[in-house]
Amino acid sequence: MDVTKVAIIGLGTVGAGVARLLLEQQDRVASRAGRRLELVQAVVRDPRKPRESWLPAALVGTDIERVTNDPAIRVVAHLVGGVEPARTILLRLLEAGKDVVTANKAVLAEHGEDLFARARQLGRSIAFDAAVAGGIPIVTNLVQCLAANQITSLRAILNGTSNFVISEMEEHGADYHATLQQAQALGYAEADPTMDIDGTDSAQKLAILARLAYGVNVPWRTITRSGIDRLHTVDIRCARELGYRIKLMAVAQLADGGTPREGLELHVSPTLVRAGTQLADTRGAFNAIHLVGDAVGEIFFHGQGAGQMPTASAVVADMMDMAVGRAQLNLRSVIPWGTPTPRVVVRDCAALRGRYYLRLMVDDHPGVLAEIAGILGCNNISIASVLQHELDGMPTDGCQVPLVIMTHKTVEGAVQRAVEEIDGLSAVGARTIRMRVLDD
Amino acid sequence: MDVTKVAIIGLGTVGAGVARLLLEQQDRVASRAGRRLELVQAVVRDPRKPRESWLPAALVGTDIERVTNDPAIRVVAHLVGGVEPARTILLRLLEAGKDVVTANKAVLAEHGEDLFARARQLGRSIAFDAAVAGGIPIVTNLVQCLAANQITSLRAILNGTSNFVISEMEEHGADYHATLQQAQALGYAEADPTMDIDGTDSAQKLAILARLAYGVNVPWRTITRSGIDRLHTVDIRCARELGYRIKLMAVAQLADGGTPREGLELHVSPTLVRAGTQLADTRGAFNAIHLVGDAVGEIFFHGQGAGQMPTASAVVADMMDMAVGRAQLNLRSVIPWGTPTPRVVVRDCAALRGRYYLRLMVDDHPGVLAEIAGILGCNNISIASVLQHELDGMPTDGCQVPLVIMTHKTVEGAVQRAVEEIDGLSAVGARTIRMRVLDD
Repeated sequence: MDVTKVAIIGLGTVGAGVARLLLEQQDRVASRAGRRLELVQAVVRDPRKPRESWLPAALVGTDIERVTNDPAIRVVAHLVGGVEPARTILLRLLEAGKDVVTANKAVLAEHGEDLFARARQLGRSIAFDAAVAGGIPIVTNLVQCLAANQITSLRAILNGTSNFVISEMEEHGADYHATLQQAQALGYAEADPTMDIDGTDSAQKLAILARLAYGVNVPWRTITRSGIDRLHTVDIRCARELGYRIKLMAVAQLADGGTPREGLELHVSPTLVRAGTQLADTRGAFNAIHLVGDAVGEIFFHGQGAGQMPTASAVVADMMDMAVGRAQLNLRSVIPWGTPTPRVVVRDCAALRGRYYLRLMVDDHPGVLAEIAGILGCNNISIASVLQHELDGMPTDGCQVPLVIMTHKTVEGAVQRAVEEIDGLSAVGARTIRMRVLDD
Repeated sequence: MDVTKVAIIGLGTVGAGVARLLLEQQDRVASRAGRRLELVQAVVRDPRKPRESWLPAALVGTDIERVTNDPAIRVVAHLVGGVEPARTILLRLLEAGKDVVTANKAVLAEHGEDLFARARQLGRSIAFDAAVAGGIPIVTNLVQCLAANQITSLRAILNGTSNFVISEMEEHGADYHATLQQAQALGYAEADPTMDIDGTDSAQKLAILARLAYGVNVPWRTITRSGIDRLHTVDIRCARELGYRIKLMAVAQLADGGTPREGLELHVSPTLVRAGTQLADTRGAFNAIHLVGDAVGEIFFHGQGAGQMPTASAVVADMMDMAVGRAQLNLRSVIPWGTPTPRVVVRDCAALRGRYYLRLMVDDHPGVLAEIAGILGCNNISIASVLQHELDGMPTDGCQVPLVIMTHKTVEGAVQRAVEEIDGLSAVGARTIRMRVLDD
């Protein structure tokens, strides 16, 4: 049986999982790839860190040249986080003639265009199914299995930490900060969870998916995004009362008519999702992706978006694809980076149409609602429902009480303007919370 | 740009959908495959049947030799239903040097071994993602994306007609025959729906998935199966009262310990699925597949299991894979037929462990329950709950009433024996309904 020699750069959580699958499941991998994948090098930063007992010490070294100088190594799993030195390492691997499998969405979102251009120049490939949604093979599904479709809508829960925190807040009624601390203690959230909870991680992943689904070349920093860090239990409870759950949604959908001409709606934000739908029912640290394609119709994927072995599952599948030669065909013909469809433009969020949830803190005296309703009316926003009643544990700002308004379908720019006006009223306190609503 | 010439055999519903995608979305397909797929022949049985206006008449002919004798045609979509002449046609295409994409699960379930052996001899490939679960690309996901995993559990709703009928019965309380007639009138069920509703279709698809997931070579006829044709609204209502929904489940899971050594549990039957789970929430004509892999953990797929364009989406993706050369690599290295894992054996259903739902029709007089409970006790079956109360529209057999018993975990053989004894009691009427329960 043929042998493909492979290496791993980085033996953190995912790297150790990949090493374990390659070493402990050699026969399984060989029988399914039709060739043996032989792990010959594992490059680490810190040689003194204790390693798993099943990992032969001879495999482990600190010098990346043990990989780049060995022409027999064809495929390398690049399991280094962050942007630098991850980018430099990835380039060195390509330049040394390696096909690279990476799980690093940050480096792709930041430098994908350059990295893929360099790979093409060198006749090499970069596979990255593990970089988005962990164990869910969404990249291969978009690029290959659903390639006959124009995707018209992609709505996804891509950050397990945020989803875990929201689910816990929902279930136990605990506030955001207490829940986040608990998630950190349980290992569901990083010591520094900023990028997870502020929407950065989701926006980076969404930028990658939007390239694959729509061919748009969107720098992730330009994606309008907000995270869960301002989320309050009162909003979770009011949403539930209205028949919704709050999810940190990453959305990339063709606006209105669903044709590329209308432009692409692209954003990450806490969103009210109708209870009972598959996205609303996605709980804990799971990820989920709901797609609509013009041929396939609706299709939904749900699985573990992070974690050692789910991510390793995706990395090893990509390594097998590289060893077999499939991934190269995928990536060379599809060219995920560098061929934007010029017709698709990202719409200004102000032009988006939809329903909105507004939660205000208002003085509890007559006339306030009339004043607010007046502002909404002047901005052509019609009110679908109003919720104002006493709830335990809601924020109180002196004698202010929460007032929740659900709008009918309107334009986001009008809502932004109305909220600015409302926040200027003397009877209105803390900044008004505004969230998108997914109804259909 | 390179061109791959392709042909279609069969212009029924799916064939017309495939022709439409290839003709109307030529540029899309070309940009994603990196080469043009040029449809040059469409072979039909009945030349007088009216065809869609967008289909150039010059493409359509009745003679398969227009395809087999044209060496420029490399990839052929085989969209002929049933076993014969579908099998003969598929063999002729392989022998003419074509790579074949088929949506025909019946011919694969019946003759897959021979067809794949012949394809290997000839150096040709057969792709078949459309044959199972329509638009859900479960074949590629199992064979490629999840290839690093040992699948430990596969639970699926694979027949849209049955799921539609059950959903309608549940929603409207209408009985089985009326619902089926309505489904036929709406086009959700075939004129002859026998293979859909008696479990044949699901068993054929399950045989294919079990080969891919476990390497077992199981003739579909040997799969223990029952359909929805004996399903009564009373069971749907009692199941709901107990916190379950009834689904026609196709199950292939490693028994007990979840290791191949323990044997494979393989069956198709109406099953109680816990309400609120993703499988229970799969409604209407949708299909769904819940997998557990030893690395990836739980992963769930939901989409349209049939219909013109969802199936065409899968066929055209396979044709693109063939044109690019990916599918051949998939299918040559993985060899879905012909390499059984000898360690995995299919367990006798009598040895299965689980909970069971029993619905009896019993005389409404004292002592009957004691008699039944006695038989269950003698067979070491302990009762978890009993449901006996009046419901509208339930079957009445003279003065008999329905009695529902949920067992604790037990062995299926014991339940079979107990039911036989119970059905012999003079106080027990129509044959007892026995269903498996999925709790975890």
